[in-house]
Amino acid sequence: MLIVYIFILCVLLIFSGVILTKPIHLSLDAMGGDYAPEIVVEGAAQSKIRHPNLKFSFFGNKEKIFPMIQSLEILRNSDVIHTNETIDANEKPSVALRKGKNSSMGMAIQLVKAGKADALVSAGNTGALMAMTKLILRPMDGITRPAIAAYFPTITGESCMLDLGANIECDVKNLVQFAFMGQAFANIVMGIKDPTISLLNIGEEEQKGLDYIKEASKILISLKTQINYKGFIEGDKIAQGLSDVIIADGFSGNVSLKTAEGTALLVTSYLKKALSSSVSSKIGYFFARKAINDFRLQMDPRKYNGAVFLGLNGIAVKSHGGTDAFGFANAIGVAVDMVRYNFISDLKYKISKIEHRL
Amino acid sequence: MLIVYIFILCVLLIFSGVILTKPIHLSLDAMGGDYAPEIVVEGAAQSKIRHPNLKFSFFGNKEKIFPMIQSLEILRNSDVIHTNETIDANEKPSVALRKGKNSSMGMAIQLVKAGKADALVSAGNTGALMAMTKLILRPMDGITRPAIAAYFPTITGESCMLDLGANIECDVKNLVQFAFMGQAFANIVMGIKDPTISLLNIGEEEQKGLDYIKEASKILISLKTQINYKGFIEGDKIAQGLSDVIIADGFSGNVSLKTAEGTALLVTSYLKKALSSSVSSKIGYFFARKAINDFRLQMDPRKYNGAVFLGLNGIAVKSHGGTDAFGFANAIGVAVDMVRYNFISDLKYKISKIEHRL
Repeated sequence: MLIVYIFILCVLLIFSGVILTKPIHLSLDAMGGDYAPEIVVEGAAQSKIRHPNLKFSFFGNKEKIFPMIQSLEILRNSDVIHTNETIDANEKPSVALRKGKNSSMGMAIQLVKAGKADALVSAGNTGALMAMTKLILRPMDGITRPAIAAYFPTITGESCMLDLGANIECDVKNLVQFAFMGQAFANIVMGIKDPTISLLNIGEEEQKGLDYIKEASKILISLKTQINYKGFIEGDKIAQGLSDVIIADGFSGNVSLKTAEGTALLVTSYLKKALSSSVSSKIGYFFARKAINDFRLQMDPRKYNGAVFLGLNGIAVKSHGGTDAFGFANAIGVAVDMVRYNFISDLKYKISKIEHRL
Repeated sequence: MLIVYIFILCVLLIFSGVILTKPIHLSLDAMGGDYAPEIVVEGAAQSKIRHPNLKFSFFGNKEKIFPMIQSLEILRNSDVIHTNETIDANEKPSVALRKGKNSSMGMAIQLVKAGKADALVSAGNTGALMAMTKLILRPMDGITRPAIAAYFPTITGESCMLDLGANIECDVKNLVQFAFMGQAFANIVMGIKDPTISLLNIGEEEQKGLDYIKEASKILISLKTQINYKGFIEGDKIAQGLSDVIIADGFSGNVSLKTAEGTALLVTSYLKKALSSSVSSKIGYFFARKAINDFRLQMDPRKYNGAVFLGLNGIAVKSHGGTDAFGFANAIGVAVDMVRYNFISDLKYKISKIEHRL
């Protein structure tokens, strides 16, 4: 009997070893973002220290990218695929689609589509990225509209929120689908067994809010065997961590997340001013500087960088356009988690099991 | 000549003295809010120390209110008008309207309507208060829908934001009217000569956002001689103080302000944890405690308590339902400012001057 156990253990160890060391191939839009390609290359190098099993394909201006890669030993096994075409930060999605497939962004997406890369990361134009990934990767069966999700820091850890701007107008069906996509993300990637889901609203009572939100709430209540739906949540409760997943239309989700970013900056600026206001407060800062630096790190928006496009036949992660290499490495980390936890096939399975036909 | 100057100076001094000491009569819904009537009575007492020319009429349960007032010398000249009827915090506006005029809230509004009080302050149910003030005080000529406005703390001071939940669905006309109401509030009450106005959106580029917001933006651009319109603003820019007035539909305005409140709490909770994490950080806190207390005070939501119902034929201020006496006193302070600066007649004049027929 013991031999059988040992045998099973060995098989499991070998298997988990294979999973852990299985190379992950990422397709990077090296020209997207305010400080591209530098932060893309440096971010990739930083993330390869954390995840040695990564391999990268960089799409963009080879003249710029190649020397950077040559100077970083850790990135020597990367591919660089040249293109002169880039998508501008302010380009309309329709224009981006025309430039499309020959741009660094478009080519990076196609590598994922072709099954030659496990995921794509870009710090480029969000609207263009959404439009192009939708066109090239296509929405998953059962999903009408993909959504953008990201982490939202809370008192208890972090929650996930979607949609953050892919769909500025939503209907009942979209919200219900977002709820299931958010559930899958929290479950598979965040490792929460039975994540709680809430709908963003301006009150908690059932009669409050817009009609389609109330209707989506009723459907989610009727699906309680499939989803741990907690009802409405107000803006001030999000950061309390009362719900693992917050569902919103893309307009108010975007407003909420950005307001939170702006407020966090405001508060830290108040604190900075207060701590340099007198000799005594400066002495205080001297003693508390480690704690205050830890506090700053906890608030660091780069830590939460990496918005995920959910509901596509492929993994696409959007980095903040203004981030640095550390932030870009975090966006890569999100993509790595999604690949490692087999997000796409798990989500497909979960979506196929929704008992309510939407 | 000198005698003429002295005479003019005397007239001005007497006149400003009359303005400064002119009694302001406030109508208070003494039963609204989680801790009523205590916080209403105590808040009134605190504000009377700041503004000795105040006189109050308290509406509610006389048995409870009268002894409290008797124990506070400063409130002795107040009126107490008895009613047993109160509006519950979770009551639907339609139910509130039925109970209506005999409730503490309804009676307090009627005193303003009758011209016997200069303004109303209530910490009661927001929806009910909006419905009842609309019914009793009526919207101003030229205003289709009144809106709720409040202060939003920023790095440079404070901005004002509206709508915060009175109108969860808005149209082009509403947004343009809100812009003019916000302009008037910032100008008259906040004392900003030519306040800047922005529309809340999910991007700054003109092609971004919902159609009716883009349309409102075009109208505001066409009215540039009358309004200092700055274009779109994103959620993360609000707290930077880039605009004096932020215009939003009631849904996303509410989400934005509440998210800001929640985030501010989150950040202070992170800071508290960091400052008690080690001996060194505790020593640091000891030295910096005055600065940190100043910082906390600057962030104190009670300081920003007092949302204003703009666009009615009368002044109505809504206090947060969960506030304490200090917070309620601040809401009274907002009402006092609006009375003192003659807000209603000034807004009426400004509205009558809008050159664009909406």
